[in-house]
Amino acid sequence: MIDCGEGTQTQLRRSRVRFTKIGHVFISHLHGDHVFGLIGMISTFGMLGRTAPLHVYATAELGPMLDAQLKMFCNQLGYDVIFHPVDTTRHAIVYEDRAVTVETIPLRHRVPCCGYLFREKPTLPHIRRDMIDCYEIPLSQIDNIKNGHDWITEDGTVIPNSRLVEPSEPPRSYAYCSDTIYLPELHNIIKGVTTVYHEATYGSEHEAMAKRYFHSTAAQAAQVAADAGSRHLIIGHFSSRYNDETPLLEEARAIFPETSLASEGACFEIV
Amino acid sequence: MIDCGEGTQTQLRRSRVRFTKIGHVFISHLHGDHVFGLIGMISTFGMLGRTAPLHVYATAELGPMLDAQLKMFCNQLGYDVIFHPVDTTRHAIVYEDRAVTVETIPLRHRVPCCGYLFREKPTLPHIRRDMIDCYEIPLSQIDNIKNGHDWITEDGTVIPNSRLVEPSEPPRSYAYCSDTIYLPELHNIIKGVTTVYHEATYGSEHEAMAKRYFHSTAAQAAQVAADAGSRHLIIGHFSSRYNDETPLLEEARAIFPETSLASEGACFEIV
Repeated sequence: MIDCGEGTQTQLRRSRVRFTKIGHVFISHLHGDHVFGLIGMISTFGMLGRTAPLHVYATAELGPMLDAQLKMFCNQLGYDVIFHPVDTTRHAIVYEDRAVTVETIPLRHRVPCCGYLFREKPTLPHIRRDMIDCYEIPLSQIDNIKNGHDWITEDGTVIPNSRLVEPSEPPRSYAYCSDTIYLPELHNIIKGVTTVYHEATYGSEHEAMAKRYFHSTAAQAAQVAADAGSRHLIIGHFSSRYNDETPLLEEARAIFPETSLASEGACFEIV
Repeated sequence: MIDCGEGTQTQLRRSRVRFTKIGHVFISHLHGDHVFGLIGMISTFGMLGRTAPLHVYATAELGPMLDAQLKMFCNQLGYDVIFHPVDTTRHAIVYEDRAVTVETIPLRHRVPCCGYLFREKPTLPHIRRDMIDCYEIPLSQIDNIKNGHDWITEDGTVIPNSRLVEPSEPPRSYAYCSDTIYLPELHNIIKGVTTVYHEATYGSEHEAMAKRYFHSTAAQAAQVAADAGSRHLIIGHFSSRYNDETPLLEEARAIFPETSLASEGACFEIV
């Protein structure tokens, strides 16, 4: 989960995401709309009998506050909340497992803030079943072949690995960039990322205000996605002055056509 | 406002209560479902440009937590949040103005907890316009008459005050009792109160569980209202095991017929 504003529990229920699926929460910065729902969600998980630890990533300042809240409101919690302080000024890997890495993306907002970049690790190639059958390769060799080995038949013929496997899907990646002033060099960190979420609080008519409050315009979000060579841009975090966000979408699409609006409850597949 | 769980802001917007109407928040106890929405509401009031102070009443423990939250999340708040520590073990007046008093109601829950009793102050009687005209009483005397004076006509006849006024509506009162184990003596404090809200987490089939977790049954809530001689009981805080609360309503009505369910968004007039 990335960020956890007030009412996250309610939205989770609506989205039918199973609560046990959430093992890690990455907080971008300590403004209320990104963090006020955390203690309530932690508390509810406890009442639902959770036992698996929950990892929380945020700027160090949140640690003592979270401790105090846990002590005051969740003193018989049946699972561990493990806090990981994050340096928002550095681009670094903060989480890694067999399938994915998570990197911080330094951003510039009115308080310390970073985005998060999720990268799937490359997976092993797919075995070509027809070739395995054709050369009567025993099951015990499949792992070797997946890991790049050739196959040598009984008569000594070398079957190159490339004939035995098909490349797996290219790894997917997702960069979450919110909240931030426009950073013209941001694309260097997120170069080639599959999907970018970038805040677009204002339209270009309010570019000066965006700068003053350390936010971005829809056009600036689109420029980041274009410079990064991404496939898909999702814009969100719209100022409440926009009852209809279509002008923001159009502004972004003029620069980066594959843009979507992060409307309430929307789901996007990262491909 | 009494208690402030997560999502209070959303419910306020739905109920169309103007945010500026809220000057005082009375917190019964420090469980998340009664307090997690407070910091978010305070923060939103600030962003909407509030300048009037907001008074928060709760057990002393909340003070330092609220301070820390205000410092971390609301450091440029344009109004004062004034915290009033409340002794939940005493029955005492904690707030008073020209129109109303607010008293604590000591309750027994798993953590320190009190209810709140709101009493309208008696208002002056209504002037009988017809009598004023009949005796040609000058405007300057109206206040005296409202305050109980008789009227003496030019020929010395004494017109008793009771002929000149009609009694005003009897003062209304509202007792909020949540969360608590059944307290057989509770009615002594809330005797004669117009409307009672009392928690009814369980039905009588779970009376033992109610006791164990310091909650009440619907029948117990009804008994309190009956013993207090109230006109109207509202029950709420139902366990999530009840998809349909009708059995709880029926259980209470068997003892106290004028019972209503505090369902989501319901409005009750206190008369």
